[in-house]
Amino acid sequence: MTETRPPKAAPDASRRSERSRRAIFDAALALVSEAGYAKTTIEGIAARAGVGKQTIYRWWPSKAAVLLDAFLDLAARANEAARRKDAHGGEGASEIPDTGDLAADLRHVLRATVDELNDPAFDGPTRALAAEGIVDPELGARFTEALLEPQLQYYVRRIEAAQAKGDIDPGTDPRVAVELLVGPLHHRWIHRTLPLTHAYADTLVDLALRGLAPRD
Amino acid sequence: MTETRPPKAAPDASRRSERSRRAIFDAALALVSEAGYAKTTIEGIAARAGVGKQTIYRWWPSKAAVLLDAFLDLAARANEAARRKDAHGGEGASEIPDTGDLAADLRHVLRATVDELNDPAFDGPTRALAAEGIVDPELGARFTEALLEPQLQYYVRRIEAAQAKGDIDPGTDPRVAVELLVGPLHHRWIHRTLPLTHAYADTLVDLALRGLAPRD
Repeated sequence: MTETRPPKAAPDASRRSERSRRAIFDAALALVSEAGYAKTTIEGIAARAGVGKQTIYRWWPSKAAVLLDAFLDLAARANEAARRKDAHGGEGASEIPDTGDLAADLRHVLRATVDELNDPAFDGPTRALAAEGIVDPELGARFTEALLEPQLQYYVRRIEAAQAKGDIDPGTDPRVAVELLVGPLHHRWIHRTLPLTHAYADTLVDLALRGLAPRD
Repeated sequence: MTETRPPKAAPDASRRSERSRRAIFDAALALVSEAGYAKTTIEGIAARAGVGKQTIYRWWPSKAAVLLDAFLDLAARANEAARRKDAHGGEGASEIPDTGDLAADLRHVLRATVDELNDPAFDGPTRALAAEGIVDPELGARFTEALLEPQLQYYVRRIEAAQAKGDIDPGTDPRVAVELLVGPLHHRWIHRTLPLTHAYADTLVDLALRGLAPRD
């Protein structure tokens, strides 16, 4: 069996599958956060989730695959939580809002990122995976492709919309513009140099938008 | 014995000490790069360096202490190499040159950083240590304090000099200005999202300096 998602089945079986899937994700994230990537095993995840090892192997081919899905699920839930308390709205699952006020929209999303990075439930496993991706090029590439790059593309689309409106210099590469916003935030988080605050997020948006403004 | 540096002694003994110290640093950096931080041991370093375990324990109290010194030494040598091929000069060991042309000085140092991060001899051990620092707060704090923070302070001083000359907005926190320059570079390196090039370094300097320019 090589399915990578719980099978569709009768309601009761489906609910049981969903409960197992949730338990497996929770166990995987907790273990990687506590013990690190290298020491997290399929056996350990199964034991902690209270399921058989074969249940995990039926749905995922490897430890990396379980963790990747657990992370995508964590990100989706964080996103959903942010949307529920979100006054902005926004048109897609994780699209950056476009209220017409670029600075306000970017402050909004960078502040939400600050909140996420300051949340221990997110910080622990994210650090563990980031650390592993730094030294393991193959795993790093998979996480960058599946998790990081889609997030950066939300910014790219918001920057492109701003360029079309004349709010950002049309000659600037939108992708580089995004790195100017998220790079400093990430640097401060990953090296724990100074506190990650909303005020810092606001300052970054202010400085970056000055740098990206249309040129005379 | 709790000395942390080879003892001063007769010339022959001193040369032998220096050779051992160099062999220990090379072995430590090679091992951490190949096997990762967790699997690097004092025993392994000693075996690879061809010295007794006691030689290492005589000079350093722990694995972290050896690696920290090995890194400081690596950074000092990279710095020295950059200075030898450096047309700029510069007043201190690692001070950023002040030729009066802020953009040129920053391009110079960011391009040198790009070269360093693209050098496998530097990239491997730096990734291993960065990864460990991300998940181990205590080790991370030591490396940030001993290695990263001093480097950031070189930038801070150059930014402060530029503020004094009126090249940079006096109301901007110099430390945040530095993060705007090095954060994006670091983000691209650590996640291997896109190539690290001199052109990218130049673009970052251009965008950051626009963001940091004096306000009307």
